[in-house]
Amino acid sequence: MIEHNDDSLSRLFAPRGIAVVGASATPGKIGAMPVTLLRKYGYDGRILPVNPRVDEIQGLETYPDLDALDDVDLAILAVPAAHAAAALARARVGQIGGAVVFTSGFAETGDEGAALQARLCAIAAERRIRLLGPNCLGFMNVRRQVYATFSPAPANGAIAAGGIGMVSQSGAFGAYAFSMARDRGLGLSHWISTGNEADIDVADCIAWLANDAHTRVIMTYMEGCRDGEKLRRALATARAAGKPVVVAKIGRTQAGAQAAASHTAALAGDDAVYDALFRQYGAVRARTVEEFFNLGYAFDTWRSPPRGKRLAVLTISGGVGALMADEAVDAGLALPAPSEAAQARLLARIPFGSARNPIDVTGQAVSEPGLLLDAVEEALEGDAYDAMAVFLAAAGSSEALWPTFENFARTMQARHPGVPLAISALFSPERRRALEALGCLVFADPSAAVKTIGAIAAREARDEPLAAGDAAPGERLEETYNEVRAMTVLARAGIPVTPCQLVASADAAVAAARDFSAPVAMKIVSADILHKSDVGGVKLRLRGEAAVREAYDAIVQAVRRNCPQARIDGVLVAPMAPAGVECIAGVHRDPVFGPVVMFGLGGIFVEVLKDVSFRIAPFERPEALAMIRDTKGHALLQGARGMPAADIGALADALVALSRFAHRHRDTLDSVEINPLLALPAGQGVLALDAVLAGRSADKGT
Amino acid sequence: MIEHNDDSLSRLFAPRGIAVVGASATPGKIGAMPVTLLRKYGYDGRILPVNPRVDEIQGLETYPDLDALDDVDLAILAVPAAHAAAALARARVGQIGGAVVFTSGFAETGDEGAALQARLCAIAAERRIRLLGPNCLGFMNVRRQVYATFSPAPANGAIAAGGIGMVSQSGAFGAYAFSMARDRGLGLSHWISTGNEADIDVADCIAWLANDAHTRVIMTYMEGCRDGEKLRRALATARAAGKPVVVAKIGRTQAGAQAAASHTAALAGDDAVYDALFRQYGAVRARTVEEFFNLGYAFDTWRSPPRGKRLAVLTISGGVGALMADEAVDAGLALPAPSEAAQARLLARIPFGSARNPIDVTGQAVSEPGLLLDAVEEALEGDAYDAMAVFLAAAGSSEALWPTFENFARTMQARHPGVPLAISALFSPERRRALEALGCLVFADPSAAVKTIGAIAAREARDEPLAAGDAAPGERLEETYNEVRAMTVLARAGIPVTPCQLVASADAAVAAARDFSAPVAMKIVSADILHKSDVGGVKLRLRGEAAVREAYDAIVQAVRRNCPQARIDGVLVAPMAPAGVECIAGVHRDPVFGPVVMFGLGGIFVEVLKDVSFRIAPFERPEALAMIRDTKGHALLQGARGMPAADIGALADALVALSRFAHRHRDTLDSVEINPLLALPAGQGVLALDAVLAGRSADKGT
Repeated sequence: MIEHNDDSLSRLFAPRGIAVVGASATPGKIGAMPVTLLRKYGYDGRILPVNPRVDEIQGLETYPDLDALDDVDLAILAVPAAHAAAALARARVGQIGGAVVFTSGFAETGDEGAALQARLCAIAAERRIRLLGPNCLGFMNVRRQVYATFSPAPANGAIAAGGIGMVSQSGAFGAYAFSMARDRGLGLSHWISTGNEADIDVADCIAWLANDAHTRVIMTYMEGCRDGEKLRRALATARAAGKPVVVAKIGRTQAGAQAAASHTAALAGDDAVYDALFRQYGAVRARTVEEFFNLGYAFDTWRSPPRGKRLAVLTISGGVGALMADEAVDAGLALPAPSEAAQARLLARIPFGSARNPIDVTGQAVSEPGLLLDAVEEALEGDAYDAMAVFLAAAGSSEALWPTFENFARTMQARHPGVPLAISALFSPERRRALEALGCLVFADPSAAVKTIGAIAAREARDEPLAAGDAAPGERLEETYNEVRAMTVLARAGIPVTPCQLVASADAAVAAARDFSAPVAMKIVSADILHKSDVGGVKLRLRGEAAVREAYDAIVQAVRRNCPQARIDGVLVAPMAPAGVECIAGVHRDPVFGPVVMFGLGGIFVEVLKDVSFRIAPFERPEALAMIRDTKGHALLQGARGMPAADIGALADALVALSRFAHRHRDTLDSVEINPLLALPAGQGVLALDAVLAGRSADKGT
Repeated sequence: MIEHNDDSLSRLFAPRGIAVVGASATPGKIGAMPVTLLRKYGYDGRILPVNPRVDEIQGLETYPDLDALDDVDLAILAVPAAHAAAALARARVGQIGGAVVFTSGFAETGDEGAALQARLCAIAAERRIRLLGPNCLGFMNVRRQVYATFSPAPANGAIAAGGIGMVSQSGAFGAYAFSMARDRGLGLSHWISTGNEADIDVADCIAWLANDAHTRVIMTYMEGCRDGEKLRRALATARAAGKPVVVAKIGRTQAGAQAAASHTAALAGDDAVYDALFRQYGAVRARTVEEFFNLGYAFDTWRSPPRGKRLAVLTISGGVGALMADEAVDAGLALPAPSEAAQARLLARIPFGSARNPIDVTGQAVSEPGLLLDAVEEALEGDAYDAMAVFLAAAGSSEALWPTFENFARTMQARHPGVPLAISALFSPERRRALEALGCLVFADPSAAVKTIGAIAAREARDEPLAAGDAAPGERLEETYNEVRAMTVLARAGIPVTPCQLVASADAAVAAARDFSAPVAMKIVSADILHKSDVGGVKLRLRGEAAVREAYDAIVQAVRRNCPQARIDGVLVAPMAPAGVECIAGVHRDPVFGPVVMFGLGGIFVEVLKDVSFRIAPFERPEALAMIRDTKGHALLQGARGMPAADIGALADALVALSRFAHRHRDTLDSVEINPLLALPAGQGVLALDAVLAGRSADKGT
């Protein structure tokens, strides 16, 4: 495997010379398009067609093979899969910086293709050539006029150079996104399709774009990835560089995941874990193509994203204001009202309007051009809002009012740069662009404006370093633990567990119960017995020596009678649990991302509603708190149904401890389930009442 | 109040002559615009400007007042609020069919304006004039060139005549929607803004459009309504006429409802009840302007909506297919796979594609023009699908492939008219229109295509008559009932209740317990005691004479000691309940829609998750079943967590019985809460274990 190195990607993505192996003069052939595009858009480096059968292509001298060339930064391979490796093998070590392989017929077609791909990779690695593809549409460096692609999309019209770096695993999606970006007037820095990802993958491109001076926003389409840790580092790099990442990732639902699995050769991993990763690193996930573009557009157009979730809505239609308020609530935004004094001044100005938020200046704004700006100045008094959405209704199309609106956007940007502005109206394309040039978003649909602001404001782009966890791996875990040993291991890891003792006699049980000075629960401990209550293996609320002694004997006899074959480790004695909210915490091993921590509330929340949240281990307290907040049931922890509020801080600490434990033992941990993890009232901590812990042998495959 | 009569609206909306009171020659005045528009668009009836101060306006002879005219179907009032009533008072009884009042300054501004509005209504009623407005933008009858509006929107460009009837309470929203419809190439039959709704409201317009031969689809924007029963009848009329209704109604969230309340004078009622109403009558609710138009567009373009939820997805990009599958699941659609045989034939044709659903024909479709149609013919074998969504990626923009795509859409429509088709690609406006003319939907965003199909397919347009309930109102309810009497009343209404007896002595308690031949629960019955357990007023699981006798005495003594002031009706004796799923059913009185039935699962489902559904009483079994399905927790009734499936049919019957009871007693019922309503295992029915019932005096206001 080639070592990842930004310089090698920079050489590939900004080449001073490009060889086109399989260059063709026949329009429509994949070897013709890049030569056509490079010439059409005025690429200023050398274009070197490689084709042993003709002397000249589109007026350029041809070469018989790569060996006939000097050093070249980029070679495009547009030859059939069966010939690709041989063509690349003609390169000398160090001669070629990178290769883009267009052709399909590799790993995506089955074993034979996979063998061809492996051979191609081996030859590239020997010659220190970075590979993009195979089975990809190539890439474009828009600012440098590098069109190393055979997509016809750029042939149909140029795209503006701009700040969006776009990287798509799928060529079809990428080409579509290119056309949509052009239609929407977005500017791109780079456009990259990664295809089979034999070497360079989406994560490499995200990391590289994060370090690219011309890229401000990264938009990526993913189907899955093989190296979770690399993707995690790439997203952390983008976050550290302050560059928002918008992600469209397929497979949110079971049907989508099945379709994705049948489509992509990549091991996708669990979608919920990707979702956790995106939240964890502040990448914003788009569910639809429309959302994908709305988000990319907003990040690209606004000079700085909102710092919080307080939205001011201003309209000339009270009804649409209410529609926008509905959407704001759905999008997790707050709609605080202006100060009482500001409201009074506003109402003096707009007697039939509304001065609360949404602010309705009514049709009066049409007859009084100064009203909009005056209203905003009143409303924005103090530091009350993080963003503003304005709906101008059909008045937005008015010729007469355009100077008012243009002046409004310009003045807002100058006076309130910290309150980014989105206007919703039906402007002509020219006017829309004029407003966008002022840093103002324009949407036809007022709800889309609010929804987009909500998604951006919800992004938790915490300035945290990548949580590294303990560098040294912990001791090797065994494959099985009974519950008492599991609890002991977790207690050592910093998770509060209920005190419990494993006893082998009635006398020992009595002694243990005496230690706890509270009613106790007793339970058979045996790996062979799953449903312990059903076989008489559990006794609860035992008080006093006689009851404990009797319970011990009853349990042992019942189990011997009902499960004569079961191996018995002993009987567990533990104090009865205090009152609290039953939660569940767990860890499972994701094949791509390693240990993943799960949290949920007990009972129907997990079992019926599947109301759980995930984070990739390890993580710190803010992430653990976000993880708790992500569950719908967390209202129960805040004191619903007459219960006292639970100790959410202690719960977060337990999750952090669990995440560190999981990370430290990532090589030999299979799974943990703490059920229930009891959240006690605030100030009283948490208590693990039961746990299952399983290790795995380190040399097991994924 | 004027009697509602379709003919009077027809006269207003299709007038043969129009008087414009306050007609003006000054551009920009609200009295100038209708004359300008009527002339610009060639209205073929008489235009009669009324203005005592000038002799001629835009070349038309003027009249001093309405009395100077012959009979006229429509009078437009464009005079200040203070003069409107006086202007209308000049009309003779029967002379004017209807009046549109543009001006604001009426009820929306406060008490003074409300008085003006009341006077205007009184004068109109005396003269049998139907009123649209005041404070409205008027209306347009596009086919008849009737532009009775002062909105500048139609002045900026004509809209095509078509099958969409649009009615908006808000003028600003209406004007915006008009412009968006024109931008999207939709055709309108009528456009109506209702403003203050002093007489004609949205419901009147829906009912009238439902009976209009030129209207196929009704799109409406609502803020609230005052006459729930009229709206219900209007939606039922549209359903009976087979005309889909798309509704944008503000106030989904608390913030939106607050904004709506501060904006509209209309009593909005509870948004959840509107939502229930829309579901009940097959109206489709749009959350955003975009959704509003996508739905209207789809209903208008497709010859017939899908008959079910089985979607076939066909793409040339596996990744985007997965994205569409994700959206399909979210939208409640099913993605069944083609038959095994069809899959085998498909795979023979597209070896590197996918033959399951989504079907991925890969880029091969670009090089083999026949492939798309062949693939669809295989997939559609049998009657396997209700709709199809196709994604063509960037290939959709290809000049060379256009004949293939056009032929595809044409052939599909001819051969599979029962499988409506949506194509997602970036077509030019002309090509989009060509496909739409073939009955094919076109979307740029593939997710929007799937989401729209889902919303349309989810619509439950059952062909039921308006459930009328029993015509005769039931006997008058009292204001208070203790639980035993409440249960007796509900039992008579057909709701299975647990047998229970109210006893006044230990002997009677013993006798009652003997009757039940099962362990019993006993509970104090007193309207003055809220938390009965807390005062020792509840004893459970009592078996045998001694236990019952002892419990009776203990309850009575404890209550006397703890609540010496409480009036006591006796002690309730009931058998302990069998195992089942605890549900809650209730009725509350909505100020607009009358009695509304609520259903939810017990415990956290209602209390923490607010997971409940509503329907307006009365309703029949299919509606009750839909109501149960609407709750997220209903999975629990199907046998989650190792429980047997519950008797959902019996649960539905109980809800129907409750809805009939509520409707019959609508004048004197305040509320019912049956909690718990126990759903027993399938075949064993349901059992109301406890109930609260409260009546109200019939002459109380809302």
